[in-house]
Amino acid sequence: MVGAGFAGLTAARTLRSAGHSVLVIEADDRVGGRTKRGTIAGETVDLGGQWVGPAQARLLALAKAFGVAIYPQFTDGRNIVDLAGRRATYVGETPALSPVALAEFALAIGRFESLARRVPPLSPWDAPDAEVLDAQTMETWILANAKAPAVRSALRLLIRTLACVEAGDVSLLAMLAMASAAGGFNEMISTRGGAQDAMLRGGVWQLADRMAQELGPAVVLSAPVSAIAQDDHGVTVSSGDRQWRGQFVVITAPPAMAGRIAYAPPLPALRDGLSQRMPMGCVIKVHVAYGRPFWRAEGLTGMVLSDRTAFGPWFDHSPERGTTGGLVGFFAGKSAQQWAERSPGARRDKVLKDIALYFGDEALKPLDYVEEVWAASAWHRGGYAAAPGPGVLTGFGPALREPIGRIHWAGTETAEAFAGYIDGAIRSGESVAEAIARRL
Amino acid sequence: MVGAGFAGLTAARTLRSAGHSVLVIEADDRVGGRTKRGTIAGETVDLGGQWVGPAQARLLALAKAFGVAIYPQFTDGRNIVDLAGRRATYVGETPALSPVALAEFALAIGRFESLARRVPPLSPWDAPDAEVLDAQTMETWILANAKAPAVRSALRLLIRTLACVEAGDVSLLAMLAMASAAGGFNEMISTRGGAQDAMLRGGVWQLADRMAQELGPAVVLSAPVSAIAQDDHGVTVSSGDRQWRGQFVVITAPPAMAGRIAYAPPLPALRDGLSQRMPMGCVIKVHVAYGRPFWRAEGLTGMVLSDRTAFGPWFDHSPERGTTGGLVGFFAGKSAQQWAERSPGARRDKVLKDIALYFGDEALKPLDYVEEVWAASAWHRGGYAAAPGPGVLTGFGPALREPIGRIHWAGTETAEAFAGYIDGAIRSGESVAEAIARRL
Repeated sequence: MVGAGFAGLTAARTLRSAGHSVLVIEADDRVGGRTKRGTIAGETVDLGGQWVGPAQARLLALAKAFGVAIYPQFTDGRNIVDLAGRRATYVGETPALSPVALAEFALAIGRFESLARRVPPLSPWDAPDAEVLDAQTMETWILANAKAPAVRSALRLLIRTLACVEAGDVSLLAMLAMASAAGGFNEMISTRGGAQDAMLRGGVWQLADRMAQELGPAVVLSAPVSAIAQDDHGVTVSSGDRQWRGQFVVITAPPAMAGRIAYAPPLPALRDGLSQRMPMGCVIKVHVAYGRPFWRAEGLTGMVLSDRTAFGPWFDHSPERGTTGGLVGFFAGKSAQQWAERSPGARRDKVLKDIALYFGDEALKPLDYVEEVWAASAWHRGGYAAAPGPGVLTGFGPALREPIGRIHWAGTETAEAFAGYIDGAIRSGESVAEAIARRL
Repeated sequence: MVGAGFAGLTAARTLRSAGHSVLVIEADDRVGGRTKRGTIAGETVDLGGQWVGPAQARLLALAKAFGVAIYPQFTDGRNIVDLAGRRATYVGETPALSPVALAEFALAIGRFESLARRVPPLSPWDAPDAEVLDAQTMETWILANAKAPAVRSALRLLIRTLACVEAGDVSLLAMLAMASAAGGFNEMISTRGGAQDAMLRGGVWQLADRMAQELGPAVVLSAPVSAIAQDDHGVTVSSGDRQWRGQFVVITAPPAMAGRIAYAPPLPALRDGLSQRMPMGCVIKVHVAYGRPFWRAEGLTGMVLSDRTAFGPWFDHSPERGTTGGLVGFFAGKSAQQWAERSPGARRDKVLKDIALYFGDEALKPLDYVEEVWAASAWHRGGYAAAPGPGVLTGFGPALREPIGRIHWAGTETAEAFAGYIDGAIRSGESVAEAIARRL
């Protein structure tokens, strides 16, 4: 397995439990992939993937297997929405827009959902009119399906939040496929009952640590794979001067990162072309700790959806027990591109000012602040996942999962459900383990 | 210089003539980059870049400097156009469409040209409404600006021929920028007086050979650069175990290939993001030789624009002197993706059948056939050039030329004029040499 994220660790664990010999080779000096342990004001938090939804059965099962409890995202109170110059608060999942905008928003989401239902998650290129859906950006679809500025802004903001790209960057078909694989757009954007429903006590990163502990010396860290050679009898995986030999190799790195490995023989054109066309989304995740969750006292949940800020959306992330307060949020898409280049101090100032815009000056005096600039992380180069532009899925999609000789592909981008989520990474690890077990 | 194509060789030659010490390190076992020598029926041909237009001053100057003559593309006779089920022949540059379609075609090209004139070639992101132009595909623009199936088909075919991608893959802004840098869309698609005006006697590849001969042992072949490290005093370029030290390094490989090098320190997020988002177009170039140019006897130029064939367009490429005949043409975009995976024999059969559709059964019996599958070529992985999808130029474009410490970027993708052409590669080599000379 190349990569010690949830896909690689799951595949290794599954294959080993079937009696096979495994090795997990990781570029970074830690396991977890796009999940990562962080500490803020003495509390352990997730600097990467964090939430779990009730339909994410494989992640829930893994948490259960390791005895890690889940607890709900805090949602008691009113959320803030501030789009196209109109600010309001609301309870529940549907942003408070003007009545006209709200009707249009619901109609647009309904149209999107009905398109998404016709997209097979494992082969979006087989959807009716796949070529047409894939020859346009999500932005083009928004312009054609929403007129009210607040609705357009809401849709753009949601795409940015879900895929860490601008609506103008990403293929409509790719967004439909993502929604289809995740149970729908509403499921993806929802807190209660949706993909942001709950969190793991102590952080989801723990599960990767626990899997790695089980695997023991079969996990090799700080070994960026530079070359993979295959012949009739097996594969040779190299990291600089170090080499490992095996019967099969599973590459769990996303296509853009997998494309940086030197393959012998070279990969077929279609797979290489895919690796040139699946850029990672761009995201910076930020945690801020406060002496108290002061927004709660004002009846607010801490959740803000705003097109006025560079940072956001953000959510309450106060410790489950205790009296301190916490917020977690994102720079995503173009905002992350721009802010990735700035200094940590400049980002911190911007985050605090953005929060203060809605929660007042108490926001300017945090206890602690931590962030992870995923786009600058040398072995990840973005997050949460790859976001294909137009033409990619219909032109190159079939190469995403197709093994090439003894090379198999896994990782959340290849998942049959919850692609882009931790749950999808686990599923992809299980699937690839089955595929390889059949060949062993 | 990393890469011994026209950019790297020109930069090396320019710097050396200013008295600086240079080294050109090339992954492949030959120089020329996306130009390449081929032989068909005893004649030398270009398997890569081939044509030169009258405005391509730098390529013309280089040919003149080495005493290589140019000769015109054969255009005596009628071209064939076969779009949306309607076949016709015509003389000159404007495809024979129905009168209504022709009017719409002219109007669409006019609109495109007037948009392109407002796009600064060196900074397309500064164009008026750049964000809007970059948030849509070329296909979206075609659907909005042409109704007649033949016009839509013609525009799609021209985009495919110019950029080796489907109209649904590429950003409108990127196509406008390409046109802007090449003197306009009409210039790009034209033979007489345009970018396909003439060829070099013996092939354009010769110029790279001649530059390399001048540079002598300063050109190192078969040395794929795997790592580049920079510090306060210089750069270290590695190819496996071999290392070279210099004050500056110029990477002339296109962004997608440059992104596969391991950099220390890692590249900034914006440049790395660019390298994930500038896929190479997909092209297979084919030469076919015949005992005689039999199409000429029927008053045809040999040029065919058709949406009925997988192969095409194709052009007369008969030897300048002599009695044999030759055609040269392309699989491009999706057609190239699909045919890159097939056997050479299957491609040959398809090409000959496609040609026979218009030129009769004599086409089925060639003297010789040669091809270059650029998308499968390990060190190029496509051609003619990189083709950015939506959102890339406005989001990441400024990273295309911006040096990073001691690393400078060149290659046709970075050119201020004729980006995507050999002429652009030469210009980029000259520009980067100037920039480095200023720092030495």
